[in-house]
Amino acid sequence: MTSAEHSPLTRKLAAFVALTEAELAVLERLHQRRRSFVAGHDMVHQGQSAQAAYILSAGWVSSYKLQADGTRQIVDFQIPGDFLGLRSVLLRTSDHSFEPIVDIEAAEVLTSDLLAAFAQTPRLATAILWAVSRDEAMVVEHLVGVGRRDALARMAHFLLELGSRLALVGMGSKHGFDCPLTQYHLADTLGLSAVHVNRVLRQLREKGLVTFRDGHVTVHDYEGLAELAEFDPAYLDQTGPLLK
Amino acid sequence: MTSAEHSPLTRKLAAFVALTEAELAVLERLHQRRRSFVAGHDMVHQGQSAQAAYILSAGWVSSYKLQADGTRQIVDFQIPGDFLGLRSVLLRTSDHSFEPIVDIEAAEVLTSDLLAAFAQTPRLATAILWAVSRDEAMVVEHLVGVGRRDALARMAHFLLELGSRLALVGMGSKHGFDCPLTQYHLADTLGLSAVHVNRVLRQLREKGLVTFRDGHVTVHDYEGLAELAEFDPAYLDQTGPLLK
Repeated sequence: MTSAEHSPLTRKLAAFVALTEAELAVLERLHQRRRSFVAGHDMVHQGQSAQAAYILSAGWVSSYKLQADGTRQIVDFQIPGDFLGLRSVLLRTSDHSFEPIVDIEAAEVLTSDLLAAFAQTPRLATAILWAVSRDEAMVVEHLVGVGRRDALARMAHFLLELGSRLALVGMGSKHGFDCPLTQYHLADTLGLSAVHVNRVLRQLREKGLVTFRDGHVTVHDYEGLAELAEFDPAYLDQTGPLLK
Repeated sequence: MTSAEHSPLTRKLAAFVALTEAELAVLERLHQRRRSFVAGHDMVHQGQSAQAAYILSAGWVSSYKLQADGTRQIVDFQIPGDFLGLRSVLLRTSDHSFEPIVDIEAAEVLTSDLLAAFAQTPRLATAILWAVSRDEAMVVEHLVGVGRRDALARMAHFLLELGSRLALVGMGSKHGFDCPLTQYHLADTLGLSAVHVNRVLRQLREKGLVTFRDGHVTVHDYEGLAELAEFDPAYLDQTGPLLK
């Protein structure tokens, strides 16, 4: 990846706004400060202030909160094209921690970079507002689903959402995607035990819907899986640019 | 309210950005299309597309999702200074419904209005990104709290968050605030029955912490209430402007 023109963020924002040459150039400048981070070490700690935001260009990151009782609640995963810590920068104190799941590459973005980019192209500001709104829609969907979906539907919904997000940045399709998450990540995301995660994955496989094995998710029956999960991807808004 | 200079949205955004005269003028223009809506009738239906966004200037609104089993999950309440349906406009399909709880006044905002405003002042785009990020931080806080807090702590946390939000727009203080919500609103927000809501409110009153009666919340012991709820308002970021 040598140009923002082909960066995952560019691919993602293109779902909302048909980017002009000038807008692509501004996006490219946002990718200038390249950084690498190794797996397993927090980039940002809960409660930390004055950190930077990042645009993730390669790898996966988990964002989580540590509870008072020491357990970990994973709030979400970031995939290429996602912002890391944008909310933390704007709100000054990070309400959660970030940990790379694999070695990652990211571009550091300062608030002043964002202001400069918005001054040059207000459509970019609207596009980033769209991306943040989409993130919020996902959290709302998780909030409403948490008490309503059983373990099987919760896992199915999670895998389908992840597949849709990855497809938008060219890293997956309705047939499947590579996935570095362990059973422990899935457990702390879905509020299940690791043993329960394994049982649920076995049930989904035995129903002929989906197999998650050796770092790859293979979807055997997309329609069946979507029906089980009551998955309606409208909230992910991936139907093509609103702003031409 | 005749000028955006004193509008609740202006007061709220001032917590993030010290607004210039030029920025105040742009905000004022966003308030031009004034609308009124009566209590009890949905402004926007779940699944509806092509609706407008609104800036709420007076009154309270609930945003909710109807579940497949017919029950209502209230996602959040909007108070003066909040956007209504900004996410729905950007994502094209509303993932929830809006219902005014009392008669309300709001200004209609089109995507083109926002683009024009951002072109004139990029700091306003950043301020609105801040407001949306703050909304997302609240939903994340609810998501993480939902399985962790018991009914008493959940109610206490909800009332404290609401009080902080209202204080930011000059409609409340640590001592209390007017509140038009019924026990049914509280029940559908906190996942409790109306009977359980009454019992929880009685317990909080008997502990000498807070009284909710006749449309008014009176906080008797702010520190005690905050301790019970483990309420840390950092995620609401109300400590004064980041952008001078």
